[in-house]
Amino acid sequence: MSAQGYAVHDPKDYHSFKVTKYDLKPEGDQDVTVDIQYCGLCSSDVHTISGGWGPFNTDFVVPGHEIVGIVSQVGKNVKEFKVGDRVGVGAQVGSCMSCYNCKNDNENYCTGDGKSAIIDTYNAVYADGSQAQGGYSTRIRAHEQFVFALPESIGSAEAAPMLCGGLTVFSPLIRNGAGPGKKVGIVGIGGLGHFGVIFAAALGAEVVAISHSPKKREDALKMGASKFISTAEDPNWAKEYKSDPFDLIINTASSNAVDLPSILSALKVHGKLISVGMPEDEFKLRAQHLIGNGCYFGSSHIGSKKEAIQMLNLVAEKNIQPWIEVVPMKDCSKAIKRLEDNDIKYRFVFEQDLEEN
Amino acid sequence: MSAQGYAVHDPKDYHSFKVTKYDLKPEGDQDVTVDIQYCGLCSSDVHTISGGWGPFNTDFVVPGHEIVGIVSQVGKNVKEFKVGDRVGVGAQVGSCMSCYNCKNDNENYCTGDGKSAIIDTYNAVYADGSQAQGGYSTRIRAHEQFVFALPESIGSAEAAPMLCGGLTVFSPLIRNGAGPGKKVGIVGIGGLGHFGVIFAAALGAEVVAISHSPKKREDALKMGASKFISTAEDPNWAKEYKSDPFDLIINTASSNAVDLPSILSALKVHGKLISVGMPEDEFKLRAQHLIGNGCYFGSSHIGSKKEAIQMLNLVAEKNIQPWIEVVPMKDCSKAIKRLEDNDIKYRFVFEQDLEEN
Repeated sequence: MSAQGYAVHDPKDYHSFKVTKYDLKPEGDQDVTVDIQYCGLCSSDVHTISGGWGPFNTDFVVPGHEIVGIVSQVGKNVKEFKVGDRVGVGAQVGSCMSCYNCKNDNENYCTGDGKSAIIDTYNAVYADGSQAQGGYSTRIRAHEQFVFALPESIGSAEAAPMLCGGLTVFSPLIRNGAGPGKKVGIVGIGGLGHFGVIFAAALGAEVVAISHSPKKREDALKMGASKFISTAEDPNWAKEYKSDPFDLIINTASSNAVDLPSILSALKVHGKLISVGMPEDEFKLRAQHLIGNGCYFGSSHIGSKKEAIQMLNLVAEKNIQPWIEVVPMKDCSKAIKRLEDNDIKYRFVFEQDLEEN
Repeated sequence: MSAQGYAVHDPKDYHSFKVTKYDLKPEGDQDVTVDIQYCGLCSSDVHTISGGWGPFNTDFVVPGHEIVGIVSQVGKNVKEFKVGDRVGVGAQVGSCMSCYNCKNDNENYCTGDGKSAIIDTYNAVYADGSQAQGGYSTRIRAHEQFVFALPESIGSAEAAPMLCGGLTVFSPLIRNGAGPGKKVGIVGIGGLGHFGVIFAAALGAEVVAISHSPKKREDALKMGASKFISTAEDPNWAKEYKSDPFDLIINTASSNAVDLPSILSALKVHGKLISVGMPEDEFKLRAQHLIGNGCYFGSSHIGSKKEAIQMLNLVAEKNIQPWIEVVPMKDCSKAIKRLEDNDIKYRFVFEQDLEEN
């Protein structure tokens, strides 16, 4: 079965998308085929198509891993879904299903079994050589473990950006106990950071938004932050937190220019700074920056299916609305330019406009 | 009251020690004065006297923070010690005693109360302007919170290097559950690393020693490692640990040249690499190095008094013997040169040889 998608063929010319036809992977017994309605724009898309995270693994790249659509076909052993279901697909479409992590709700940290391992939603190659392409397209096929049922009350365009961007911040929040009585900092109020503030507040934590420029103050407070810090206006902001420190800080900035020593100094003893922002350049970090409070610097890889379900249930229960702008899929290049210009509040979602011929 | 010590007056000429006389801090009501018998040589001493960690905070530096001696005087409110007691002093001699951390067995992470904060054993200045000097000397004065009773069965020279070097690895081991059923890696088999292997094994963990050169294989196995890895001989060592990963790795190397990406990749999901080695240069770290297993990179600052007592009790109970070489205190400069040449197995301890005039 084939699909058509907006593809980048050359990372040096990554603003040029060409509508390209390609074959989906052969259908496995537990594969679900989804006709795509919406797909979110994630910063990962830009890091990948521009070659910032490395050369292409596939002949071309159709990006997109925040996918909502309708099930159009199911493999013979699919149990969870049937044709016609509305579903989501995030940033992962496969794993080995047999390693310790896969068997313990950590399929997002699959270590592989020698035959197969994590398959990213796009720019990835299956063991049989099939190439995985993403959601700026008409259709995708994924193992049912990586397909999520969507609660009826969540709109399709609204659900899309939660499936990577939302889950990426929800997982470290929930794994580190964000909730009543906990103080959580969110560094960077962009696509990921806006979900960080919204979810941490919905979970009952006290949320402080930490942003370079003061421009996002009003928005961050509307999203649920109890306080907003502009590090440009107040470069010594961290000092006051020494005596009233954070349990957890999530860094969502995708540049390595954040002031790590200050951020780390604002944590409790053994508190954690988790960077879900993935700058292309290295952080420069001294053990001395971590010693004052014995804190930790970590990262986190999307989330498990169990957490995706937990997140979607919270969204439905609390009627959480992400801040999105819906544009036609053919405008993906324009949207990427606006993302690069930071002209976005706070997540683009592409609406399907491709007609197959 | 005064003391005499081997002092470095110029970081540019840090191999030159001059016997120097100076005043101890004025005696506080909870201060204990200790006549020094032994003092260990810690890499921190070299980082400090050479200016590698920054300029001197005091007029000169008498290093040494692994001190054993006899109590010669006590302040009027001292409860735990009396004149004649054999005691130890480690790398900290003061804290505010009133912040949240001080009140919760984390005085080693004291955040200060605006008046006072952590006082390092040397190269530190008290709120009243008194200068703290260390243990390459005849005498030291410290608040009783930072003085440790020594179980009778532990030799004085043997106890000395445990009070910084030993405690520095014991604290992260114990706080992270090193014990039966846990796999612990120790990177760098030097002064700190040898305590890491000995203590992790004594706590019942499975211990893997990870060293650049193969030279330390035999020693590491004698110390209690069940396996030795030479990263020079087997640069791809980490691969086999992907399916059998570490719960915890302690990095004791004092250079930033360790292969962090490999080490981090050998951890379990959300496992920790804790660097107690404090290189003078920065680590270059990408969030991408932490994402595959959602692991953490952290550090740790010595240990609390509670942990020091727990460590000393374990040492007494298991009759643990550190690997030390005792030399006269006047040979401190020679010992430092040998440390710099890596000609040490595995910790120098200086025996008192100063006579006060």
